Amino acid sequence: MKFLEKLLTASRRQNSLLCVGLDPEPKRLPAELRQVPEATAVVRFCRTIIEATLPYVCAYKPNLAFFEALGAGGMQAFQEVLGAIPAHVPVIADGKRGDIGNTARNYASALFDVYGCDAATVNPYLGYDSVAPFLAYREKGVLLLCRTSNPGARDFQDLLVQAENGEARPLYEVVARRAQSWNEAGNCGLVVGATYPEELRTIRSLCPGMPIRGG
Amino acid sequence: MKFLEKLLTASRRQNSLLCVGLDPEPKRLPAELRQVPEATAVVRFCRTIIEATLPYVCAYKPNLAFFEALGAGGMQAFQEVLGAIPAHVPVIADGKRGDIGNTARNYASALFDVYGCDAATVNPYLGYDSVAPFLAYREKGVLLLCRTSNPGARDFQDLLVQAENGEARPLYEVVARRAQSWNEAGNCGLVVGATYPEELRTIRSLCPGMPIRGG
Repeated sequence: MKFLEKLLTASRRQNSLLCVGLDPEPKRLPAELRQVPEATAVVRFCRTIIEATLPYVCAYKPNLAFFEALGAGGMQAFQEVLGAIPAHVPVIADGKRGDIGNTARNYASALFDVYGCDAATVNPYLGYDSVAPFLAYREKGVLLLCRTSNPGARDFQDLLVQAENGEARPLYEVVARRAQSWNEAGNCGLVVGATYPEELRTIRSLCPGMPIRGG
Repeated sequence: MKFLEKLLTASRRQNSLLCVGLDPEPKRLPAELRQVPEATAVVRFCRTIIEATLPYVCAYKPNLAFFEALGAGGMQAFQEVLGAIPAHVPVIADGKRGDIGNTARNYASALFDVYGCDAATVNPYLGYDSVAPFLAYREKGVLLLCRTSNPGARDFQDLLVQAENGEARPLYEVVARRAQSWNEAGNCGLVVGATYPEELRTIRSLCPGMPIRGG
């Protein structure tokens, strides 16, 4: 099943638009989990979150940074957390990868083939050939960073660019337009901070059929 | 010792400007290594490369994608490869990470605290607050993607944007200017494809003292 279909099916079945992020910070876990090794604590914590939220979500979004920071055993923990998510609930791997050619192919393969995630967040700065190896997995979702919600988003994403029609438009709009043109397999989506409703409205009008994740 | 000093010391000592990338693709390893598990083969291959090149290099640049694609054991392999690089030779972790706030802190901590790398490549699309957690490691190097050498670099990096002075300049120049202004600790560098000598010349003039890595 394609990502978008899987997401919509889960959304209807659970009557939910809620995607729960899994960003486990060992130092902020409950006291009783601070007695065990960090990777074990992270797995237990995430599994507890998943059990408690499962009836209310349409997707989970584990954040790779928090697993990588656990060291060599971190990706084993990531895999164990994924094992606690039922197959019908889509998993968005939040890694914001972006690199060229065979490197991008390896990132995509890690997230889609090895860990079996349903979608991944991808950074568009390196352009089409950095995104294409992800898009080539036609049944997987590729969520391109477009307009993020952090203050630094203004540094580059908001810069006015001379668009194809000669008009000056913010860079994030150009990213949205390109995403729309790259969406041949219908598996492309966007990350747009929901804290900016104006920008969100413009991007929605540029990409009417595309899944947009707040963030 | 700060990254730039460590790099220059290694460069002088070895009389070399050569940085060797470690991008091990299991399917392309020599036949005799295809009999053992992939992670083992990758470690042996990288160690052989390191032994053979050590007298001629000033740095190594392992590419995280190729270790991540090995699955849960991949980061153990990464750690074992790093163990074969002598302490006086700087290691640039090529991961092109880029995310906000505490996520960026976790990526930086993984590469600098956990694996002890000397520098990391970072994607600037999310702006200052995505780069600052890396720059906060004042003794580590932060190499920002600026103008990459792949065809897709044109999609966004070359777009003309309205710079502070009202002039229309390519986005990669704005990235270079920002990097220069963020370089308070002297630990910021740039990734610029050496296949574009004109762009390289402009960027060098904007950032006269900054290390620039081809790629």
